[in-house]
Amino acid sequence: MSSHTRVKKDKEIIGDYETQVKEIRNQLVEQFRCLEQQSESRLQLLQDLQEFFRRKAELQLEYSRGLDKLAERFSGKIRSSREHQHFKKDQNLLSTVNCWYLVLNQTRRESRDHATLSDLYNNNVIFRLAHVGEDVIRLFKKSKDIGVQMHEELVKVTNELYTVMKTYHMYHAESVSAESKLKEAEKQEEKQIGKANEVSTSLMRHDDRPQRRSSVKKMEKMKEKRQAKYSENKLKCTKARNDYLLNLAATNALVAKYYIHDVSDMIDCCDMGYHASLARTLRTYLSAEYSLETSRHEGLDQLEGAVDAMDVRGDKHRVMDMHSQIFCPPTRFDYQPHMGDEVCQVSAQQPVQTELLMRHHQLQSRLGTLKIENEEVRKTLDATMQTLQDMLTVEDFDVSEAFQHSQSTESVKSASSDSYMSKVNVAKRRANQQETEGFYFTKFKEYLNGSNLIVKLQAKHDLLKQTLGEGENNSPVTMLPPTLPPKPGRMRKPRPRSIFNHKLFNGNMEAFIKVLTAPYLAPMWSLCVHSPSILQPPPILHHSHPPSSHMASPSLGLPRPLPRPISTAFGLFSQA
Amino acid sequence: MSSHTRVKKDKEIIGDYETQVKEIRNQLVEQFRCLEQQSESRLQLLQDLQEFFRRKAELQLEYSRGLDKLAERFSGKIRSSREHQHFKKDQNLLSTVNCWYLVLNQTRRESRDHATLSDLYNNNVIFRLAHVGEDVIRLFKKSKDIGVQMHEELVKVTNELYTVMKTYHMYHAESVSAESKLKEAEKQEEKQIGKANEVSTSLMRHDDRPQRRSSVKKMEKMKEKRQAKYSENKLKCTKARNDYLLNLAATNALVAKYYIHDVSDMIDCCDMGYHASLARTLRTYLSAEYSLETSRHEGLDQLEGAVDAMDVRGDKHRVMDMHSQIFCPPTRFDYQPHMGDEVCQVSAQQPVQTELLMRHHQLQSRLGTLKIENEEVRKTLDATMQTLQDMLTVEDFDVSEAFQHSQSTESVKSASSDSYMSKVNVAKRRANQQETEGFYFTKFKEYLNGSNLIVKLQAKHDLLKQTLGEGENNSPVTMLPPTLPPKPGRMRKPRPRSIFNHKLFNGNMEAFIKVLTAPYLAPMWSLCVHSPSILQPPPILHHSHPPSSHMASPSLGLPRPLPRPISTAFGLFSQA
Repeated sequence: MSSHTRVKKDKEIIGDYETQVKEIRNQLVEQFRCLEQQSESRLQLLQDLQEFFRRKAELQLEYSRGLDKLAERFSGKIRSSREHQHFKKDQNLLSTVNCWYLVLNQTRRESRDHATLSDLYNNNVIFRLAHVGEDVIRLFKKSKDIGVQMHEELVKVTNELYTVMKTYHMYHAESVSAESKLKEAEKQEEKQIGKANEVSTSLMRHDDRPQRRSSVKKMEKMKEKRQAKYSENKLKCTKARNDYLLNLAATNALVAKYYIHDVSDMIDCCDMGYHASLARTLRTYLSAEYSLETSRHEGLDQLEGAVDAMDVRGDKHRVMDMHSQIFCPPTRFDYQPHMGDEVCQVSAQQPVQTELLMRHHQLQSRLGTLKIENEEVRKTLDATMQTLQDMLTVEDFDVSEAFQHSQSTESVKSASSDSYMSKVNVAKRRANQQETEGFYFTKFKEYLNGSNLIVKLQAKHDLLKQTLGEGENNSPVTMLPPTLPPKPGRMRKPRPRSIFNHKLFNGNMEAFIKVLTAPYLAPMWSLCVHSPSILQPPPILHHSHPPSSHMASPSLGLPRPLPRPISTAFGLFSQA
Repeated sequence: MSSHTRVKKDKEIIGDYETQVKEIRNQLVEQFRCLEQQSESRLQLLQDLQEFFRRKAELQLEYSRGLDKLAERFSGKIRSSREHQHFKKDQNLLSTVNCWYLVLNQTRRESRDHATLSDLYNNNVIFRLAHVGEDVIRLFKKSKDIGVQMHEELVKVTNELYTVMKTYHMYHAESVSAESKLKEAEKQEEKQIGKANEVSTSLMRHDDRPQRRSSVKKMEKMKEKRQAKYSENKLKCTKARNDYLLNLAATNALVAKYYIHDVSDMIDCCDMGYHASLARTLRTYLSAEYSLETSRHEGLDQLEGAVDAMDVRGDKHRVMDMHSQIFCPPTRFDYQPHMGDEVCQVSAQQPVQTELLMRHHQLQSRLGTLKIENEEVRKTLDATMQTLQDMLTVEDFDVSEAFQHSQSTESVKSASSDSYMSKVNVAKRRANQQETEGFYFTKFKEYLNGSNLIVKLQAKHDLLKQTLGEGENNSPVTMLPPTLPPKPGRMRKPRPRSIFNHKLFNGNMEAFIKVLTAPYLAPMWSLCVHSPSILQPPPILHHSHPPSSHMASPSLGLPRPLPRPISTAFGLFSQA
């Protein structure tokens, strides 16, 4: 170092060195402790995870059993019920009941999936975690072995440094001592030479000269000896210093390597595969959870499909099919001629002709008034039904808000506070709905009375008109073809649901009905031809809501407009 | 009817008619019964659904509580743990521990969501079902009222038909009787006329003539009377028949209307809103279930993100940061000149010069051999690590098969039978892995010994080379700049994770490190410049697997190659 630095004493240097080495050794011990602590933390984490999944598996199994019991309770009830026997055949299954069956299916599915989850936790996830734990323990031991080897190397190299430093100190001390001895000799020699010169110039005595010469020689010899000793020691010191400097470089390089790379490598050995194995374990858990979700979603989609396919008309027809005897139109009342009366049609000869003509005119004008009145009632009915329909199909079922997890607070909104379910709101809505419904029924009765009267008068009117117009050549009643009417069940065979739902108004339904009904209905329908507004299916069947609203809510359980003659496929009047 | 049909007697006609009416009335009664039955079925279904959701709400709540208790148990443990205090700050949170926290978060989230589900079942779904039930009862009553009105109309019209038919029978009978009386009168008149003609031609007596004339006149009068009676009755009969025929038409029209439309309308009244309301209820259920699923999925995605972000290097650095005192490189060993020794570098003057030169050459050749040998060991190490890595990152975590629901059978595959978890398979794999790992450690020790030796010899070699080449003008040791070394924790500040994960090799990391390390490391790294293969981070840090494999599995917990100088940011040798 530069000359102005304080010169350290040997003991100080050794002391500093030993402190430095002790600090390193302390760090090495602490590094092992840190590694051990980390392994312990990992083992604790793995143990916690195992305990967690063991308990979660139990929860899943409990939940699964609960769901299974629940599904089984209602499935058993269904199996033993009367309805089930009725609806056993798929084509007879009501769309609403189908939804209920799918709710139960979904419950069974959830039950099975949660049992599977439990199984996977117990027989896969927990095993993996145990294996990761074994690996942590084993790798910690092996890494510590590696670390011990590294530390031994550090101890060895610092010991060597100590040795070469001490050697340098020794040789340098000897070199310094030899140098001072040499210097002392040189000083004495100088003194001797000075004395000799002084003597030779001032006081030269023969007796003294040889004595003095021998002492000078002796002095020179000693100086040479000391010079040789000094050179030898200096070389030894140079070698020792070189060794010290080289070992210093090697030691610093090794210490640097240890701190920069080896300690990190030791930790890497300890970490080997830990993250990968833990990740695979958690991915197993995720795979299980995601799979459960997929399965759950499939089930919910099936149920949603069934809800979409809920079909008020289809269900009505299914029920009527199943009770075809009850809903089958009866044989028509035929004209029964009395005691061989051969007249079997309305007679419009004189003297009744005038009266019939008058009656016909009266009927015509009465019908005109009645139809206008009833048409007004029908319009009110339609509007009321539209209002009811809006109430019945309000989309108030979105509860997703209740599942919003706010990031800041962990609270969730109370589900019962949502707009639909506030008690006041519900009560108001229901009161409103029932009021409208009551009004609808009042109007419907009024409409029914009107249309009943109209249908009777119309029948009489049409018969009179025919009689008065065509004379007595043929009667619409007696000319009915003797063909058998179609059987109710056979004719309205259930169509594939997809067609039923989606092609109701743009499929070939019209043509189908035309073909079906034409031969049987022509005479009967001729009664209605002149008053299509009356004998059309009454309002709840023919509301004039726009087609777009049907498309938007295809199965909301509300009656939909249908081409009028569909119900005639029932077989108008059976003549069997 | 045509003349060849058998003439029915009055009683037979009345009997037939009454049978026919009775059949219709039976049907009407059965129709009501059917409507009632349907309403009862609906009420039963609604009751079952309510009971189902009530019980399911209980299950959800139980499950929710179990999950909450489970999460709380471990969360409490974490809060009170020592590690938590350590890792409380986000930047100190280990990526593995973060996953564990997210597993618990997910559990808490599931707990809250299932509680919400329970709440929605109890306070929304069940209420809706109850309302649907009320509607069913009310609408059945109102529809039945409508039906009663319809039936009364049918009864009225058939009664009327009966009356007009009876009237027709009566008048026809009278007409027939009047006709026969008239015919009898005509026959008698004919007989009288015939008799008169016979008398007038064969035996004409004056006395008889006025007597006969008066009897003929009487006869004629009777005939006229009978004729008038007959005409009157015939007219009455015609009117009655016309009335009968008109009423027949009206009755048939009304019966047809009832069977074709009215009965269907009555059912529609009963159905009003049932499907729509039930659909809305089930959609509420579906909305809740789908929302739970969405929330669940969000949580799982968060966890998956954390698993993806698992970061073995980042965690290592976090641990080392937290224990910076332990891993901070110590002060370097400085050259300590002995007792004012002013020489502070390797001396290459004669007579040691030759020896140093020889030593330098020996070191050079020894290093050459050692490096070749160690490079071979390194290659073996790399290959072994690659094998290990393949074992540790095998993608064996897909358990989705366990959740496949076969449509035909309801069984699911046993989760424990899957390929990963078969016991034999697992044991074999683990034995294989441990064998490879053992081999890796053996080779790593060998490599460590080699590289330790090389680093020491290299340091000496480089110092000698410098000394011999440059003379004694400057020493690399004493010329170290007096700058303070960087503090370990400060320099390797945690970078944003995204950069750390994705931009490790193509970001500006290289430049960053160059800037960081240049001032401090130049002299130290100069020691390594000549042997880059040795002082590179040892194999577990620099495996030469292709970059594509990192991209595919970015965080599998395996060490990844990193630009060598990163660990030097630790602050090479602190000189404080």
